[in-house]
Amino acid sequence: MTNRGRLDEVLRQALYMVRPAPEELKMAENIAQTLVESLRTAFAGRAVKVTLEGSYAKGTVLRGRNEVDIFIHFHPSNPLDKISRETIETSSHIIKSLGGIVRLRYAEHPYTEGFIDKVRVNIVPCYSVEKGAWITAVDRTPYHTEFVRKNLRENQVGDVQLLKGFLTASDLYGAEIRVSGFSGYLCELLIIHYGTLANLIREAVEWRPPVLVGPKSIALHKKYPSAAMILADPVDENRNVAAAVSAENLHHFVLLSRLFLAQPRLEYFNRPSWGENLNMAGRGLLSIVFDTPSGKPPDILWGEIRRTAEGISRCLAHHGFTPLRWKAHTDERSAVILFELDETVLPPHHVHAGPPVTHHRAIEFVQRQVRSPRVVAGPWISGGRLYSLRRREYTRADRLLMEKLKVGEISVAKGLAEALNQAKITQDSEVIKAELDARDLTAFLAEFVEACPGYIKTYRSHT
Amino acid sequence: MTNRGRLDEVLRQALYMVRPAPEELKMAENIAQTLVESLRTAFAGRAVKVTLEGSYAKGTVLRGRNEVDIFIHFHPSNPLDKISRETIETSSHIIKSLGGIVRLRYAEHPYTEGFIDKVRVNIVPCYSVEKGAWITAVDRTPYHTEFVRKNLRENQVGDVQLLKGFLTASDLYGAEIRVSGFSGYLCELLIIHYGTLANLIREAVEWRPPVLVGPKSIALHKKYPSAAMILADPVDENRNVAAAVSAENLHHFVLLSRLFLAQPRLEYFNRPSWGENLNMAGRGLLSIVFDTPSGKPPDILWGEIRRTAEGISRCLAHHGFTPLRWKAHTDERSAVILFELDETVLPPHHVHAGPPVTHHRAIEFVQRQVRSPRVVAGPWISGGRLYSLRRREYTRADRLLMEKLKVGEISVAKGLAEALNQAKITQDSEVIKAELDARDLTAFLAEFVEACPGYIKTYRSHT
Repeated sequence: MTNRGRLDEVLRQALYMVRPAPEELKMAENIAQTLVESLRTAFAGRAVKVTLEGSYAKGTVLRGRNEVDIFIHFHPSNPLDKISRETIETSSHIIKSLGGIVRLRYAEHPYTEGFIDKVRVNIVPCYSVEKGAWITAVDRTPYHTEFVRKNLRENQVGDVQLLKGFLTASDLYGAEIRVSGFSGYLCELLIIHYGTLANLIREAVEWRPPVLVGPKSIALHKKYPSAAMILADPVDENRNVAAAVSAENLHHFVLLSRLFLAQPRLEYFNRPSWGENLNMAGRGLLSIVFDTPSGKPPDILWGEIRRTAEGISRCLAHHGFTPLRWKAHTDERSAVILFELDETVLPPHHVHAGPPVTHHRAIEFVQRQVRSPRVVAGPWISGGRLYSLRRREYTRADRLLMEKLKVGEISVAKGLAEALNQAKITQDSEVIKAELDARDLTAFLAEFVEACPGYIKTYRSHT
Repeated sequence: MTNRGRLDEVLRQALYMVRPAPEELKMAENIAQTLVESLRTAFAGRAVKVTLEGSYAKGTVLRGRNEVDIFIHFHPSNPLDKISRETIETSSHIIKSLGGIVRLRYAEHPYTEGFIDKVRVNIVPCYSVEKGAWITAVDRTPYHTEFVRKNLRENQVGDVQLLKGFLTASDLYGAEIRVSGFSGYLCELLIIHYGTLANLIREAVEWRPPVLVGPKSIALHKKYPSAAMILADPVDENRNVAAAVSAENLHHFVLLSRLFLAQPRLEYFNRPSWGENLNMAGRGLLSIVFDTPSGKPPDILWGEIRRTAEGISRCLAHHGFTPLRWKAHTDERSAVILFELDETVLPPHHVHAGPPVTHHRAIEFVQRQVRSPRVVAGPWISGGRLYSLRRREYTRADRLLMEKLKVGEISVAKGLAEALNQAKITQDSEVIKAELDARDLTAFLAEFVEACPGYIKTYRSHT
């Protein structure tokens, strides 16, 4: 079979994996209809209308990700806190009356998340406004639904589902900060733009960030020069639909596309399993475990975790360690940040580079070195420059972080500073393993230790 | 006292340290006269003339370095091997008859070195030629003597001796490869050019290599673009008198001048002592001890040792070690090269950087990593680039060098390759200390471990 033929065949087979089962859709349809009717009755006179939105409304739902988004459209004369409160109160009552459970969520403003018979439902208040006259971010959503319904052809729906499945298997699907990947709407626009998933993949293998999709992205790039990927929202040309996609994840998508195109396989639509051979011997692993303040929206918490991990990395690097990677996990009660360093124990001395001999501060450097009790050798000259050998202040990464966190000398997220004071920090592999096993994070640890994206693991197991 | 006054005072006092004692000069004068007379008689009819040359003839002898150079001038019609043989035979006979001992030395061609009553005498054959019609390198020497005698003023002789003493105390005096410093003739020309040592030092503090002395050095710099220092020989404008001065030593001279000028002290004319507090704990020291093939001229041996040490440094760096410095010692029977590394034991793994994800060889890299049994983690993506963690081939520097020297995979000087096969290599501080103590190299080891030039040590002990 030609490579092209193989690609088409794999995508054809993968469709069975990514399309929801008919009974799954049927169940969602029943729930959606019941809910919409109840909400219409409940909000009659108070809201302009109640509509189905999101991937369910567009028919692009991914198997196992069946969720129903219902929007309550209010007149702009209603204050935001009023429409939020009313939506939450009334929708919670209705979900419970249908035997479901309710959770409060926040995007830009609060909305209701519920579960009825395993189907997730999101009930979101928005304003009924003209295009461009947005009051809240979600006011665009009904226009997104409309645009996709109009522009996504019937025979492209499967490609959107394939793309979502392809991304999900490699942890690249989702615009939330934890994932920093591709949103559902971005997937739909990409398929509309490139026609098919096969076309998108054939383009993606040549991408070099920043990736500008469509002619309108050029103007937007000037506005967001540091965005890794840019696609102008057709319902609001000032908005970058791909804003959430991190450079790292875009690179993952490029490499994933290259590997998949080189050797199309159904396995790229499945998440690989982790945790068989945990080779931690001689590795510079370090774990930081701490309780997280309760009630934080996930995007806020993940943003704080990322800033904290970056601050810790900088502190490690500043003290001579070489942080290679980090990865975090949180169940929103406690968090674990794993680091891998070149070494977690450094030699007792380090070379300190001074100015060139001919520099006007050379004498000053010599003076400081000969007076410093931390200098154990030198200063000597090498290549015209002065050097000395100094006693290292911290040879162990765990000690460094414990002390520096205690005195607040690491730039961490303010919202986590207190929790980090009490953090458990360890660089003993056995202890890390026991700690993470006890927290049911064996797979997370294994994935970190393997340090290999799922799709490369898939590639590896077939070469 | 002003700084200028202090400088003058220190130089005045230092003169007593650098000027030979009258009895030292008297003894040399007697020996020189006797030798010249005997040689004139012996070479009557065979040689054109016999003359006194070198620092003794110019009156610029440094205390304790009293040596007499006598040149036998032959007519160019005599072949080189004939004049060498005749000089060696006759002069050896004469030295022995005066109760001295004889050693054969090589520069460009062989000459006789002898010791009579502790005075070193060098008896060198040369050709009596017009300026510029040089047959051998030493044919210039009589013209050098003549030039210095004509151009060095009586009151500048002391400054030459001071400069030689200043350089000797910091191991910067001598054009031989071991030292790679300032020759006696260069010292004389520098004083002639700058007038006094104080002037030279005041200029040197501003030097930035390459240092071009005199207007004629500019043309010469084009011919020798990589020379650290250039001073055109007044008797042969195509020759760089400062060719032997290494960039490193020139930098030492600049820093020495800056420290001395900032705080003039008599101690800069003395070599400091080494070896009180040997702090070797936690240092990445490594020693290589080997027998040297006998009968090699020192300049050849030192050149080979340097090339070998550089080859070993490259091998260490190539395998992930960080060589900081090296220093060698040889008594021309055996040699010791000491290295200091950042660490002599590296962690079991190392990060291997691959191409950017967007590079056309990215897939090839991934393929190699997933197939390699040495890869323990990854490949992962960071900053758009691929990385993997690989098992290190050598974690100990001593094992690496032992194996690589055995199979000839280190670029060492050919003349030392066989000896290095049998080299004793150790990175255990206790063993290094015992080995060097047994060889009477305690001071050499101490100097290396302190890693601080003598003049900085002097500076340190007075701040």
